[in-house]
Amino acid sequence: MRVLLAGYAADRYIWQHRYIAKTIEQKVLQMNKAPTIAHDNAPSLTPLVTLLADDMEQVNAQIVARMASDVPLVPELAGHLIAAGGKRLRPLLTLAGARLAGGSPHAIGLATAVEFIHSATLLHDDVIDESKLRRGHDTANALWGNDASVLVGDFLFARAFELMVETDSLSVLGRLSNASARITEGEIKQMTIAGVADTPAADYFDVIRNKTAILFAAAIAAGAEVAGADKAVIEATHDYGLQLGMAFQIMDDAMDYSQSSAAMGKNSGDDFLDQKITLPMILAYGDGDEAERNFWHKTMRDGDFADGDFDKAHSILQRHNAIERSIAEAVTYASAAEATMQRIAEQSKADPALLEALCEAARFAAHRQT
Amino acid sequence: MRVLLAGYAADRYIWQHRYIAKTIEQKVLQMNKAPTIAHDNAPSLTPLVTLLADDMEQVNAQIVARMASDVPLVPELAGHLIAAGGKRLRPLLTLAGARLAGGSPHAIGLATAVEFIHSATLLHDDVIDESKLRRGHDTANALWGNDASVLVGDFLFARAFELMVETDSLSVLGRLSNASARITEGEIKQMTIAGVADTPAADYFDVIRNKTAILFAAAIAAGAEVAGADKAVIEATHDYGLQLGMAFQIMDDAMDYSQSSAAMGKNSGDDFLDQKITLPMILAYGDGDEAERNFWHKTMRDGDFADGDFDKAHSILQRHNAIERSIAEAVTYASAAEATMQRIAEQSKADPALLEALCEAARFAAHRQT
Repeated sequence: MRVLLAGYAADRYIWQHRYIAKTIEQKVLQMNKAPTIAHDNAPSLTPLVTLLADDMEQVNAQIVARMASDVPLVPELAGHLIAAGGKRLRPLLTLAGARLAGGSPHAIGLATAVEFIHSATLLHDDVIDESKLRRGHDTANALWGNDASVLVGDFLFARAFELMVETDSLSVLGRLSNASARITEGEIKQMTIAGVADTPAADYFDVIRNKTAILFAAAIAAGAEVAGADKAVIEATHDYGLQLGMAFQIMDDAMDYSQSSAAMGKNSGDDFLDQKITLPMILAYGDGDEAERNFWHKTMRDGDFADGDFDKAHSILQRHNAIERSIAEAVTYASAAEATMQRIAEQSKADPALLEALCEAARFAAHRQT
Repeated sequence: MRVLLAGYAADRYIWQHRYIAKTIEQKVLQMNKAPTIAHDNAPSLTPLVTLLADDMEQVNAQIVARMASDVPLVPELAGHLIAAGGKRLRPLLTLAGARLAGGSPHAIGLATAVEFIHSATLLHDDVIDESKLRRGHDTANALWGNDASVLVGDFLFARAFELMVETDSLSVLGRLSNASARITEGEIKQMTIAGVADTPAADYFDVIRNKTAILFAAAIAAGAEVAGADKAVIEATHDYGLQLGMAFQIMDDAMDYSQSSAAMGKNSGDDFLDQKITLPMILAYGDGDEAERNFWHKTMRDGDFADGDFDKAHSILQRHNAIERSIAEAVTYASAAEATMQRIAEQSKADPALLEALCEAARFAAHRQT
C-alpha cells in the first residue's frame, strides 16, 4: 500500500475515473437484454433469461442505483466488475423462485442483494487467487489493487444486507446470512486443502457445496420464500438450487482443464497453477501410478511448475478419462435438479414455460461451453 | 498464494494448530474479568467494565461459541485476533444501551455481533495496512497470510448478521448493515486521500465519522433499540456514540505521533509510514511553510522516507502544537458526548452508576494513554 497509494491517488485514480467510469452505467443497464447463449439444440439459459427479462431489467437498474456512493471509487470498481458481465444466474434464480410462488414486490431488491453477495465474493476471490483476468476482462484487483477490491467487496456485502432488510423478512435474512457464512467456510476449506494432492473427493464436494451451491440454493429459495411459497416448495427450490450449483461448479472445474478453457474468458489452467484441488485431478490421482502421483506432488503440493506441465497434467487427466468422469458427475447433479423441478411442476400452478425453463437451466449447468 | 499455500497446508498449518489454538478459548473466556485500565484519577473504563462484567462474560462465551466452524482455521484465526484483546468498547456500549432501556435477552447476541463486525474490519484493515503488529501481538495476516484474513473477516461479518437475525429486529439489522456499509465507505475514502497532504480537515472528519464513529453510534443505539427504548433515547444514544467515537479516533491518530505511541502496542508512526492523512498532519500542513509542506509531499505523497523522517515529522508537529490541538478536538467531542449522556440521565430511570460510567467512558476517550 505504501508505494501504491502515492501514485494511486494521483495518476491512476484520475485515469480510471476518466476512461472507465463513464460507460459503466450504460453497460449494466443493457445487460441481459439479449439472449446470452445460443447453441444449436444445446440446453441454454435463453428461455429463462427471456421469461424474466423485464424483471431483470429492473434488477440491473437497482444494481446501478444501489452501488451508488459519495465515494466515487465504490461505483467505479463495483461497476467494472458488474458491467463485465456473467450470466447473472443467481439473481435470475431469485426472480424465478419468486415467480414460481406468484411473485413479490420484494423480488427485485432481493435479486439485487443476491448479485451483490456474489459480486463481493468474486472481488475477494480474485484477490486471493491473484487473478488478473475474469470473463476476459482485467480483474478489479489488477486495475485498482487488492486493497480497493477487499473494501469494495465489503461494501457490496453490507449493501446486500441493507437491501435484504428492505424485504421485511427475517427468515430471508437468516437464509442468506447463513449462506454467506458457509460460502466463506467453503473458501477457507478450499484454501486449507490447496496443494494436498490426496484430498478425498468428499472434501472437494464439501468445499463446492459451501462455496458455490449453497448460494444458488439460497437464491431461489429466498425468492420463493419472499413470495410466500409453502414450506415444501421452499425446500424443494432449495434442493434444486443446490443440485444445480453442484453441477455448475463441477463443470467449471472440469472446463478449467479442458482445451476449450480459453473460451471461458479465464486464464487457462488457473486451478492447476493455483494448486487448487478439483475433481478431475482427484480422480486422476486416485487412479494414478507412482510417477503420476509424484508429478501431482511436485506441482500441486510443492508449487514447482515447469514449462509443459499443464499439458502433461492434461494428458494424465485424459489417460484416466478424468474430465469426462467429472462431467458425468455434473450431469448426475443436473439430472437430480431437473427431477426436483419436475416434482415442483407437478404440484405447481406456476407458468409451465417457467418450470420448463428452470429444467433447461439445470441441463445447461452440465452442458455449458462457457 | 501459489508459493504460500504449498508450505501453508503442511508445516505452517500444523504448527499454528498446535501452538496457538489450544489457549484461545481460555484467553477469550477470561477477558474483561479484571479492570482493563487504572490510572490515578484519570478517566477510566473500569466503572463501565465492572458494571457490565456479568453480561460481558456471557458475550465472551458467545464469541467462543459462535466463531465455531467445522473448518478449524476459522476459530483459530478469529480466536487469535479476539484473544489478543482490546477494550471491547463496542460490545460494552451495546450492553450499556440495552441496560439503559431496562435490558433485553437479545443484548448478549447483539453485542457479540457488534464485536464480530469490528473484528472483521480489523482483519481486513491489517491486510490493507500490511500491519504486522496489533496490540503488541503479531497480526493474523502476519501469521496466517492475507488470504486467510480476508476470508475469516468475511466469515465473521456473515456470522454477525446471523446473530443479528436472532434478535428478531429488522430495525437493528438495518442500523448495523447501514453502519457496515458506511465503515467501508470511510475506509475507501481514507484510501483515496492517502498521500494527499493538502486534504481538507473536513474530509478527515468525514472519514473517521464513517470508519469509526458510526459503529460506536450503532452499537449503543442498537442496544437501546433492542431493549425497546423510546425513539428519542435511541437517537440520543446514537449521538453519544458518534461523539465518543470521534473523540476515540482523533485520540488514536494523535497518539500515533506521540512519543508514547509504543505503549499502544502498535508499530510507532504507522500512520506516517502508511501515508495515512490524519488530523495532526493536516493541522501542521495548514500552518506550515514551504519547506515543511515539501517535506510532507516528499513523505506522504511520494512515499520517500529517509532515516529520521519520523522524528522530523514529530518535531514539525510539535512546532505547530498539532498533537495538542488534535487532542483538544478530541476533548471537544468527548465533552459533547458527556453532555449528551447527561441529558439522557436527566430523563432516564436507569441506574445512575451506569449513566455516570458512560459519562466517564466519554472522558476516557479523550484522555486515554492506551
